[in-house]
Amino acid sequence: MTRLDISRAAELLADLPGWRCEDVRGGVIKRELVFADFAQAFGFMTQLALAAEKRNHHPEWFNVYNRVDITLTTHDVDGISMRDIEMARLAERIHQALSAS
Amino acid sequence: MTRLDISRAAELLADLPGWRCEDVRGGVIKRELVFADFAQAFGFMTQLALAAEKRNHHPEWFNVYNRVDITLTTHDVDGISMRDIEMARLAERIHQALSAS
Repeated sequence: MTRLDISRAAELLADLPGWRCEDVRGGVIKRELVFADFAQAFGFMTQLALAAEKRNHHPEWFNVYNRVDITLTTHDVDGISMRDIEMARLAERIHQALSAS
Repeated sequence: MTRLDISRAAELLADLPGWRCEDVRGGVIKRELVFADFAQAFGFMTQLALAAEKRNHHPEWFNVYNRVDITLTTHDVDGISMRDIEMARLAERIHQALSAS
């Protein structure tokens, strides 16, 4: 597991609109998502929670009604790793699938 | 639905250690919970989410790994109502059931 510097992480997030890097706590990536309602927002969280548990790589997230704010970082490298980029990609896939339904 | 003043809400929370009132946004009640691990924390969230959806009264919450921070308020009364107290009681029952398992 290698720590990505912020500029490299930003490059990797170029295909994931809405995601951004922040230079706090060694580096984090963040996204705010909005869903149709609470059921859809919590459905998203449940899908991502199962994947997070399987990978043993968990998000920090805040939810109120139809909004989910996610922050990803990798404590083992004290910053951003490919595990965060992969989780962001997965979150986008789940979000798009739910939004299309 | 009636708005409870902060002191009345605090009285009602006397039986719910860990819960406190804060005089922000017309009044909120809050609690930080710690679980054994992420699976247990998200299990708690899932149980409370189903009840919240049924009651159409949703929490604001933050989760990272085994920690869940919950804030309850009632937008319709711009403060705390009995619906928040009841959700707090339910959250405690779920928390205690999971902690005992």
